Amino acid sequence: MVTLISLIIAEAALETVPKQIASHPAVKNQAQKLGRNPREILLDKSYHHSAMLRSGLESYWKRGRPDIIHFALMEALSTPLFLKNMLKVYVHTVKNKLIIIGDNLRIPKSYFRFEGIMINLFKEKIINSPDDDNMLLELHDNITFEQFIINEVRPDKLIGLSSDGVKSSAEEIVSRNNIKNSNHIAFVVGGFPKGHFSEDTSRVFSYSFSISELELEAHVVIARILYECEKILDLHN
Amino acid sequence: MVTLISLIIAEAALETVPKQIASHPAVKNQAQKLGRNPREILLDKSYHHSAMLRSGLESYWKRGRPDIIHFALMEALSTPLFLKNMLKVYVHTVKNKLIIIGDNLRIPKSYFRFEGIMINLFKEKIINSPDDDNMLLELHDNITFEQFIINEVRPDKLIGLSSDGVKSSAEEIVSRNNIKNSNHIAFVVGGFPKGHFSEDTSRVFSYSFSISELELEAHVVIARILYECEKILDLHN
Repeated sequence: MVTLISLIIAEAALETVPKQIASHPAVKNQAQKLGRNPREILLDKSYHHSAMLRSGLESYWKRGRPDIIHFALMEALSTPLFLKNMLKVYVHTVKNKLIIIGDNLRIPKSYFRFEGIMINLFKEKIINSPDDDNMLLELHDNITFEQFIINEVRPDKLIGLSSDGVKSSAEEIVSRNNIKNSNHIAFVVGGFPKGHFSEDTSRVFSYSFSISELELEAHVVIARILYECEKILDLHN
Repeated sequence: MVTLISLIIAEAALETVPKQIASHPAVKNQAQKLGRNPREILLDKSYHHSAMLRSGLESYWKRGRPDIIHFALMEALSTPLFLKNMLKVYVHTVKNKLIIIGDNLRIPKSYFRFEGIMINLFKEKIINSPDDDNMLLELHDNITFEQFIINEVRPDKLIGLSSDGVKSSAEEIVSRNNIKNSNHIAFVVGGFPKGHFSEDTSRVFSYSFSISELELEAHVVIARILYECEKILDLHN
């Protein structure tokens, strides 16, 4: 039996600038610097905070954090588990968009380059490798978290990692959930700055665990869970 | 006996633009976008690659990677070990500059904000908290790695982590080096894209270990070593 592990970065604060704030000076100014149309660039609280606030953008505190997704993806894609093709990675956004990460994607650490790739992905919906034409990134619109889990991921167990979950440790979660003998375990980590998963997400979880009494950053949770998976799968021997 | 753990990001590819390439169009253009003097901005391979190459900048393949330092610092500063004040963090750069990280620093995940802070640090040499005036970041010029270790860190053991070190695992390194009963263990991770530590750095190590047969990114090595330190120190109970 082959173990498959999936990681899902859910309710990800990654989207392009919404129409509502596209004509705000901060947005137009940044779009000009990037040589892009304002609606093409990524919503980013570091640049658009006052525009987001003033326009009363819905759930604005949970949106416009591409930096969080960058760190979370970098963490997952740098692990031996991913490098050895034993991990599938997905991003599901606040706007019900699904991003499928290709097995051979090496994400750039430079934010400038990451931003360019994501802008292209939102526009083109697919990015293939220039070398061998393999899919690196694919974007699908209008798919709810539940549809995505049921139709695309189809895990045996879906484990949510959230500070309001049952207190445990990364090691316990991995050892008690029988990673080694399961067909397919999927972990869900939040891709947003604070607060908890919405009901639409959490109702799909088989279990929900918290691995620290501190509110850990998504990338730290990812690092620890994947590392424990590697240990239990004897990837280091 | 109190355990103290230090993390040093060594030969860090973090510096401001050198005089040699300050008048290159790519540098001037980027400085203008940031509203800065060309010599104030960070050397960044993502923007300055051709300028670095054409001017024959010494060891150019090991320089201009502030993104690597951003990821490495974020990894360390997001751990419970750091958040509970049990970890001291330092950056020692290719240009023999030492950056001391204050215990209360929360580094921004946004590269745009990180860049702004680092530009200010190189200019002002110190950044204090606007809230309570505590030191957040301090920069010292002209201190070699050896001087820094002997005069500032003064660890009982200095452990280098490098792909050409003795093969081990993060767990073994932490358990065999008696972290729990030592006064002060310092770990050194490289803050550069590829290759090994220079002789100036590695000759100061007590030991040198490799934790994977793959060449892991600095931030992955940091995540794993610090997590194992937390486990052995019972930080999760």
